[in-house]
Amino acid sequence: MSIKVSIQGEQGSFHDAAARQFTGDELKIVPCETFAATFKALADGRAERAVVAIENSLYGSINEVYDLLLKHRLWIMGEVYLRIEQCLVGVPGADIGLIKEVHSHPLALAQCEYFLDETLPDALRFEHHDTAGSAADVKKWNDKSKSAIASREAATLYDLDILAKGIETNKANYTRFVVLQKNHEVLQNANKTSLILTAADKPGALYNALGVFAEAGINLSKLQSRPLIGQAWRYMFYVDVMANAASGLFLSAIEKLERQACEVKLLGSYPSGKR
Amino acid sequence: MSIKVSIQGEQGSFHDAAARQFTGDELKIVPCETFAATFKALADGRAERAVVAIENSLYGSINEVYDLLLKHRLWIMGEVYLRIEQCLVGVPGADIGLIKEVHSHPLALAQCEYFLDETLPDALRFEHHDTAGSAADVKKWNDKSKSAIASREAATLYDLDILAKGIETNKANYTRFVVLQKNHEVLQNANKTSLILTAADKPGALYNALGVFAEAGINLSKLQSRPLIGQAWRYMFYVDVMANAASGLFLSAIEKLERQACEVKLLGSYPSGKR
Repeated sequence: MSIKVSIQGEQGSFHDAAARQFTGDELKIVPCETFAATFKALADGRAERAVVAIENSLYGSINEVYDLLLKHRLWIMGEVYLRIEQCLVGVPGADIGLIKEVHSHPLALAQCEYFLDETLPDALRFEHHDTAGSAADVKKWNDKSKSAIASREAATLYDLDILAKGIETNKANYTRFVVLQKNHEVLQNANKTSLILTAADKPGALYNALGVFAEAGINLSKLQSRPLIGQAWRYMFYVDVMANAASGLFLSAIEKLERQACEVKLLGSYPSGKR
Repeated sequence: MSIKVSIQGEQGSFHDAAARQFTGDELKIVPCETFAATFKALADGRAERAVVAIENSLYGSINEVYDLLLKHRLWIMGEVYLRIEQCLVGVPGADIGLIKEVHSHPLALAQCEYFLDETLPDALRFEHHDTAGSAADVKKWNDKSKSAIASREAATLYDLDILAKGIETNKANYTRFVVLQKNHEVLQNANKTSLILTAADKPGALYNALGVFAEAGINLSKLQSRPLIGQAWRYMFYVDVMANAASGLFLSAIEKLERQACEVKLLGSYPSGKR
C-alpha cells in the first residue's frame, strides 16, 4: 500500500526527493502548485501526509509555511534535511556554449547567479514556479538552446543531459523539510518538539520563558519570531526544542510557562532528522 | 537646502510618505526600483539618506532589508511608523461597478484580497513593483475600466479618484521604516539601538546573552533570527534594545556579551519613532 503525500511542486522536485528520503519509494505524490494547496490536500484528506520546506540554510525561514502551520493545526511527525545541489540541464546533445535560455524557480536562479553571470552572461533567465517543472518544459520544447536549473533526479526523470553540476554559489545549501499528518500523536522515539510560544506582554517575558527551558536542560534548536496579527509590534515565537512532547521534563516545563502567562501551542513532536 | 533621500518606489509611494514624515517636505526623492538599489544609492553618495521598510505588522520582517543592513554597514539614525491605508483608485469618472483590472504591488493585492473577492470577484489582478507606480500607469492608460491599489497621496499626486478607501482586510496594518545615513554617529537623544548578535555555538548561549540585557534592565523590542551563511543551522539575531548606544549601561552590557564570546555588530542608534 503506497502512502499519498502532497508536496509543493511535482515529480523530480526537491520536495519529491525529500518525501522519498522520508517515506521510501512506496509513495504516491500529490503535486500541488503552492504551499497553501499542499496543506489543503492533507487537511481535505486527498493526501495522508504533506512534505513542505520550512527553512533553507541560505535563504532562512519560509514565513508562509510558518503561517500555514498556525492556520491549519496539522501535526509535524518528522523532518528531513536535504543538500540542495543545482544542475544545469538540457536536451540530449545540448552544448553549454550554445545555451540561450535558462528556466527555473526564482530561488534556484538566485542561488546560481554567480555561475550564470560567469558562464552564461548573455542567456535570458525565465522564472518558473518549480525547478522540476522547468526541466519538464525543456524536455517538451526539445530545443538545444534552452536549459533549466534543477536536481539530478529531475534530469534522470525527464531524460535530460546534465550540462553542469554543483552550480550553486554557496555549497552549504541545505533545506529542512517537515512531514505533516492530521493525527496529533507523539511517537515514542520523538526527541524534538515544535511549538508556538506567545510570551506575556511585559519586559523580560521572552527571557523568562527561555529560562524555563534552560533550567530544565532542554536545548533550543530554533527560535523564529512572527508578528501577532491584529496586535501591531507584538510577536509570537516558533520554537524547536530537543525534547519529547510526552516526557515529564517537557510537560513540567510547559506547566511552568503557563504559570508565567505564556501561551503554548504544540505543532508536533518527532525524531530529529539526520543533518 | 533639500536632503536627497533614496527610497524603494517612487513619488506617492508609502516609502515617499515615510521619508516626508521623517524629513519634512524639504527633500529630494531618489526613486529606486529595489531595496538593493536604495542602499546602493546611499553607499555611492547619490543620496544622503535612505528610507527602507523593515517590518510590517501583518507580513512580518522584510528579510532582504535585514540582509542588506549586514552587507552595507550603513547606520540607522531614525525610524518611522506609518499606518498603511490602501485605496482603490481610478481615472476621474470611473465607476467601481465597471472596473475590469486591478494593478498593484503583490503585498497590497494580498492585503486587500477580501475586498477584491467580495467587491470585484471578476476583475483581473496584475502585479506591479510599486503601488504608486501602478497608480501612475492607470493615469497614463486613461481607461475607466482599469484601477490601482495605492495610497491617498498617490491618488492626489496623479489626480485620480478614490473609488474605495480603507480596503485592507486587517486595519492593524502598520509598517516600520528605518532611516539610514553613512556616518556612524549616536545622537544624544537616541534611546533605541539596533544590533546583530551572534551567540557562541553552545546550548543556552542565546538565553545567557538575553540575560545580560535583562539584568541591566534594558528592554528588547525585537528579536529576529537569520541564518549564518556558510554555517548551516546556526543563526544570528537582529535585536532592537531600548538604550542609547553611547550610554554606560549599554557599553557595559556589550562588554559582558563579549566576555560570553558573543559577537556584536552595531547597526545604529536613534530616537524611537512614534507608533
